[in-house]
Amino acid sequence: MITQQQYESVVDRAAKMLEQAGIVLTPAERAGFEVADFGLGELEQTGLEIITYINTDRVCAKELVLLPHQSCPEHRHPGVGSKPGKEETFRCRRGTVYLYVPGPSAAQPVCRPPHGSEAYYTVSHEICLKPGEQYTLFPDTLHWFQAGPEGAIVSEFSTRSTDDQDVFTDPRIKRAPEISH
Amino acid sequence: MITQQQYESVVDRAAKMLEQAGIVLTPAERAGFEVADFGLGELEQTGLEIITYINTDRVCAKELVLLPHQSCPEHRHPGVGSKPGKEETFRCRRGTVYLYVPGPSAAQPVCRPPHGSEAYYTVSHEICLKPGEQYTLFPDTLHWFQAGPEGAIVSEFSTRSTDDQDVFTDPRIKRAPEISH
Repeated sequence: MITQQQYESVVDRAAKMLEQAGIVLTPAERAGFEVADFGLGELEQTGLEIITYINTDRVCAKELVLLPHQSCPEHRHPGVGSKPGKEETFRCRRGTVYLYVPGPSAAQPVCRPPHGSEAYYTVSHEICLKPGEQYTLFPDTLHWFQAGPEGAIVSEFSTRSTDDQDVFTDPRIKRAPEISH
Repeated sequence: MITQQQYESVVDRAAKMLEQAGIVLTPAERAGFEVADFGLGELEQTGLEIITYINTDRVCAKELVLLPHQSCPEHRHPGVGSKPGKEETFRCRRGTVYLYVPGPSAAQPVCRPPHGSEAYYTVSHEICLKPGEQYTLFPDTLHWFQAGPEGAIVSEFSTRSTDDQDVFTDPRIKRAPEISH
């Protein structure tokens, strides 16, 4: 749960980052900015700011904005019935984003999981993405990511996004954003 | 067919447009810029400059660059076998792009088909896209597009791209770029 004031303050910051990157939004997109705190109530540490351009049965495209050192918590996109899970490519546009996936752990990882949530961050193979660099995640791959000190803007190109079917490692997480009024 | 010199000159212009828009490419992407003249030998009038970020079995993302008044000729993306055709969303990032699709003709269309190719431009419902605006084309929809006087940058979010299966209205067109050495 976040307050209306928190929502507006974070949207102002995220919108300014997009503007500085030259990314133009329509007024309707700006008004519909999604702020996910994942129900943990520590938005500056664990959260994600999202503009969804398109999400059809087959194709989805978003801009993801991360505040400095903000983390998107570990999750995966499993298949549902006969449908394969979501495939997604993250392309860094601004700042630096560190993506963690299954594989050999980094000897000296740049990022740490948010304090108190370490148990729910289980993959630690580090991929550093700077502007112009990208990485493709195939379905059902555990992953989490965190921005560097300047925050980050990441374009996501994917198959259909069905957030309610994401599986988070942390059982406390509620994916659907809630704003208190 | 275009010459190596034409290729390099047009890539310089397109790369500068992306840079001015704040869109960062890797050196490998810059070196692999695709210039399509569609085999017509009138690149300034009929052509498209393309960076393909990703093209998997399920998802494709590209940046399309159009020089001032440059046209991408009329075509459609039919299904092949049991696979539905390509679905694509065009999002204008810079400049203005005029997209033409089936539907009522514009009373006073902004663009004209390239001189001498009028017979191969059959749809004339006009959609004007300025930065931040987008339009989704479902499979097998005839379409063509042309940039305004400043040129345009258009992000394309789509299902898998299989250019060799595109069907162009103009039978003279050869989609695969050829450069003379």
